[in-house]
Amino acid sequence: MYRDMLVELYDKNIIEKNFNSTVFLENLLLSDHIHPKELEIDKKQNLIESGVHNENIYFIRRGIVSSSLGFMGKGRFLGLDTLVMNDTPLYTIKTIEPCELYVFDKLEVMEYLFSLQEGWLFLYLIEKEERNLLLKNHSFLTLKGLERMEAVLIDLAQDFGIREDDMVILPKSFSKKLIAEYANLSVNTITILIKELKKEHFLKTRTANNLFYIDGSKVPKK
Amino acid sequence: MYRDMLVELYDKNIIEKNFNSTVFLENLLLSDHIHPKELEIDKKQNLIESGVHNENIYFIRRGIVSSSLGFMGKGRFLGLDTLVMNDTPLYTIKTIEPCELYVFDKLEVMEYLFSLQEGWLFLYLIEKEERNLLLKNHSFLTLKGLERMEAVLIDLAQDFGIREDDMVILPKSFSKKLIAEYANLSVNTITILIKELKKEHFLKTRTANNLFYIDGSKVPKK
Repeated sequence: MYRDMLVELYDKNIIEKNFNSTVFLENLLLSDHIHPKELEIDKKQNLIESGVHNENIYFIRRGIVSSSLGFMGKGRFLGLDTLVMNDTPLYTIKTIEPCELYVFDKLEVMEYLFSLQEGWLFLYLIEKEERNLLLKNHSFLTLKGLERMEAVLIDLAQDFGIREDDMVILPKSFSKKLIAEYANLSVNTITILIKELKKEHFLKTRTANNLFYIDGSKVPKK
Repeated sequence: MYRDMLVELYDKNIIEKNFNSTVFLENLLLSDHIHPKELEIDKKQNLIESGVHNENIYFIRRGIVSSSLGFMGKGRFLGLDTLVMNDTPLYTIKTIEPCELYVFDKLEVMEYLFSLQEGWLFLYLIEKEERNLLLKNHSFLTLKGLERMEAVLIDLAQDFGIREDDMVILPKSFSKKLIAEYANLSVNTITILIKELKKEHFLKTRTANNLFYIDGSKVPKK
């Protein structure tokens, strides 16, 4: 009876092609029942606050935000985890640089999602993506100082770095302090580790404006 | 059109009452199309292996397992995260003590789930539960030595401890080594922290068989 659908559900590629954030955004923007707003917001602003009900779903068009799950950039939805059940967020999400966002009304998104037969797959896959992000960040914390720092930098470089010649440069919003927080190390420790990583030529000594210049050969392309 | 359903979906209590693991298990056991097997398995056995396709869903009837998400005990489903898309597990799940399980065939569970109109809510809620478990364990790693050890022990005591007079005793499967792994501390560090916690009367000095006896007043009831 459900075999056809089941076979499709069993195909990872079909699902990931049809139910990802990009397709979801396109659908939302095309729907007559959805009234997105555009928002530009400065850095260091809370978009979603732990324990505080919020009425919006956000989509990042430009910029980077941070949360207990890690950093999230362009193409990510925020707030979908409290869509069903309308519960309060478990963690705060704040901008670490100026961001451009779409803002959607939660109830509108919800109505739209449930008007689709397989709308829940969007929710489920995005939830899964976030879980995997958290799982990855969790794994960093099980590494020791220098290893942890390297793993964190390579990961950030893959997601947010800009390739330039043989280097990958992190956006300037990734300050020592922010990386220290994320890696759960003190700023002092980070400073010592940076020296170490420069000696190993993992980081380039050219660190004008305190930017992180990472040896490009150490950053696998995604 | 969907308002009625939406209002229900917006009610956290209704959803959590109707779509939790217990209700899901009851439904599975009542269905004619599901053929559960019972399994007794020894400690230190892999139930699910990272990167290896598995054809089963497990339900823990007795015993405790460990994974990157943390420890899971009686009443938990295992393997649902790879049901849709049939992808390979991201982490290994192994028994830390002898376990009694129900074993379900993945495809049978999948067919059953999708024969229900709101079957996806089971998946979604269980996925969410696991994410929250991971989030909690992640937060432990951001604490320093003694604080981390206390938080981990209180949490384990709440989930798996047995109250006896003014103490909460952890099952003997929670060895120093296992807690060290979980807390991401060395066994040496754990040994030092245990001495410290005994001085503070957080742990009782009566530690026959290396059991953890925790001051019951420090363990909030769930």
